[in-house]
Amino acid sequence: MIHPIPSGTRDVLPDETRELRVITDALRGVFERYGYGEVYTPALEYESVLAQAGHPAYGAGSADARPAYRVFDESGAVLALRSDMTVPIARVVATRYANTEPPLRFCYLAHCYRGVRPQRGQPRELLQAGVELIGSPAPKGTAEALTVLCSCLDAVGLQDYRIGLGDASLFGSLMESLGVKPSDREALLSTLAARDFVALDERLSRLSIAVESRELLLEVPQRRGGPEVLSEADGPVSEAVAGLRSVYELLASDVASRVIFDLGLVGSIGYYTGAVFEVYDPALGSPIGGGGRYDELLGRFGRSLPAVGFALGIERLHIALAGEERGTGALLS
Amino acid sequence: MIHPIPSGTRDVLPDETRELRVITDALRGVFERYGYGEVYTPALEYESVLAQAGHPAYGAGSADARPAYRVFDESGAVLALRSDMTVPIARVVATRYANTEPPLRFCYLAHCYRGVRPQRGQPRELLQAGVELIGSPAPKGTAEALTVLCSCLDAVGLQDYRIGLGDASLFGSLMESLGVKPSDREALLSTLAARDFVALDERLSRLSIAVESRELLLEVPQRRGGPEVLSEADGPVSEAVAGLRSVYELLASDVASRVIFDLGLVGSIGYYTGAVFEVYDPALGSPIGGGGRYDELLGRFGRSLPAVGFALGIERLHIALAGEERGTGALLS
Repeated sequence: MIHPIPSGTRDVLPDETRELRVITDALRGVFERYGYGEVYTPALEYESVLAQAGHPAYGAGSADARPAYRVFDESGAVLALRSDMTVPIARVVATRYANTEPPLRFCYLAHCYRGVRPQRGQPRELLQAGVELIGSPAPKGTAEALTVLCSCLDAVGLQDYRIGLGDASLFGSLMESLGVKPSDREALLSTLAARDFVALDERLSRLSIAVESRELLLEVPQRRGGPEVLSEADGPVSEAVAGLRSVYELLASDVASRVIFDLGLVGSIGYYTGAVFEVYDPALGSPIGGGGRYDELLGRFGRSLPAVGFALGIERLHIALAGEERGTGALLS
Repeated sequence: MIHPIPSGTRDVLPDETRELRVITDALRGVFERYGYGEVYTPALEYESVLAQAGHPAYGAGSADARPAYRVFDESGAVLALRSDMTVPIARVVATRYANTEPPLRFCYLAHCYRGVRPQRGQPRELLQAGVELIGSPAPKGTAEALTVLCSCLDAVGLQDYRIGLGDASLFGSLMESLGVKPSDREALLSTLAARDFVALDERLSRLSIAVESRELLLEVPQRRGGPEVLSEADGPVSEAVAGLRSVYELLASDVASRVIFDLGLVGSIGYYTGAVFEVYDPALGSPIGGGGRYDELLGRFGRSLPAVGFALGIERLHIALAGEERGTGALLS
């Protein structure tokens, strides 16, 4: 007999649970080795508290981080199901660690809840593992986060992964310096966040700016590759690019060798401010996880500290590992 | 800065997470040793599917198991946050194990969501560990569940616990045989489920039944103690008592020595049909967990199989362990 479950949710049966457990145990081991303490926050929070995370000026894709499910409790309060652990941990830091000397290192393994659009195969409930490094500015904190991230992926045995590295502020700076009107910027950024260069081209063609500017706005975010990508960039993007270079210089060679610079990577979550990154594997068509700097989020909860973090989707990681084992990875890479 | 979280929820910080992890790892080890496979089901399900668990004839306290939080998704479907794992696992068995030879053994470690009343200190979100043994009838299945339960409590190092053992059908049989009108039964059962003997006495005094019947209805559910409790019981409760005796005869001596018979224990969740049990520890004023037989629940999802299970509240277990270590247990016991 079939009893449906909501799209984007799934039952995880014992064989799969056992495999997922191997992954999460390995990740916990890495988190512990690097001194990250595991926290758990309630799945249900006051919507008004989570909303303090706010919507940054360049809010591209911030819908992803906004809680999608509202619950009314017995007393009429509006609760929301968390959509990530970064915002709750920012709240915890401001509330429970208000006077603790930074840096603070937290990790988590928790389910998060996202809105889904029909027939897109998006997960409504996803198990995430991740870290938040609070109070360690760029470039040092960013380099640590990337190092922990690679250690995680190495620990679970993923072979062919790459880390795409960009900067959430880069395209904004470029638009500003090339005279794109503030009212046009958000739509362009959303289009770029969705990696839709055809739509970006189309949108740019409707702007009343110089042809060369338009070409630059389409071309720069398509620059992707090794460190040479950084040397070619200058002008309005030089600050973001210098930031990426200084992170790169701090990376050990095994981590650095995984990095692909991607000047069009702006991060899909609205609170990112600086470096952003995504994990790719040839065995999976979409990112396994990602993260970035969110230097302004903590301040919105009352304790202004620079911060960086990442989250891995455990189920995607599992699929990528299985794909590599079957050799799909080798075929596609 | 203080950012409130909903009453009945909490932030679990690294020191506590580490201690909880020791407990959950020990429980997982026991579950695995007894052949229970870990499953995870979505926190959000269709309310209409969960509602198939229904409300049994004697629905005392069934509010406990009814989902308390409704969520409307993008497409207008009514979802509910699970309030336990027993109903979702019944759904999984009917859907994914429709043709698998019983018995089936499942375990879980998952958060469940319950409604709270203000100022009662009730948890809104609780981490539960438990098992469901599907297709193993009484008394054998019940004895196995009690054995696994004691192994769990032994594995985490709880010293002074006792298992209260009763039968969910006993008081119903007694009321029926003593001529309590069907319309009066549910209120009486709810009062007993709340362990409120003063209110039970008061309610009984308003019934138009014989004085001796009234006295019996107040006295029998207060019988509590060793196996001698069973020998004294006969008449309308003889069937339930014989069931408890046959479970007891199957228990190894270390498990049997933990059992306290309690003829007033009816289980706080509406789907229980036969033996019900609760875990007590002198270091904690309320049960750490409990379980029972739910021989009719699976049938409501289309695969009629007898079943028994239990759940432990991990946070309560943690508090009880800490209390025993501080010696509170020794003082109170």
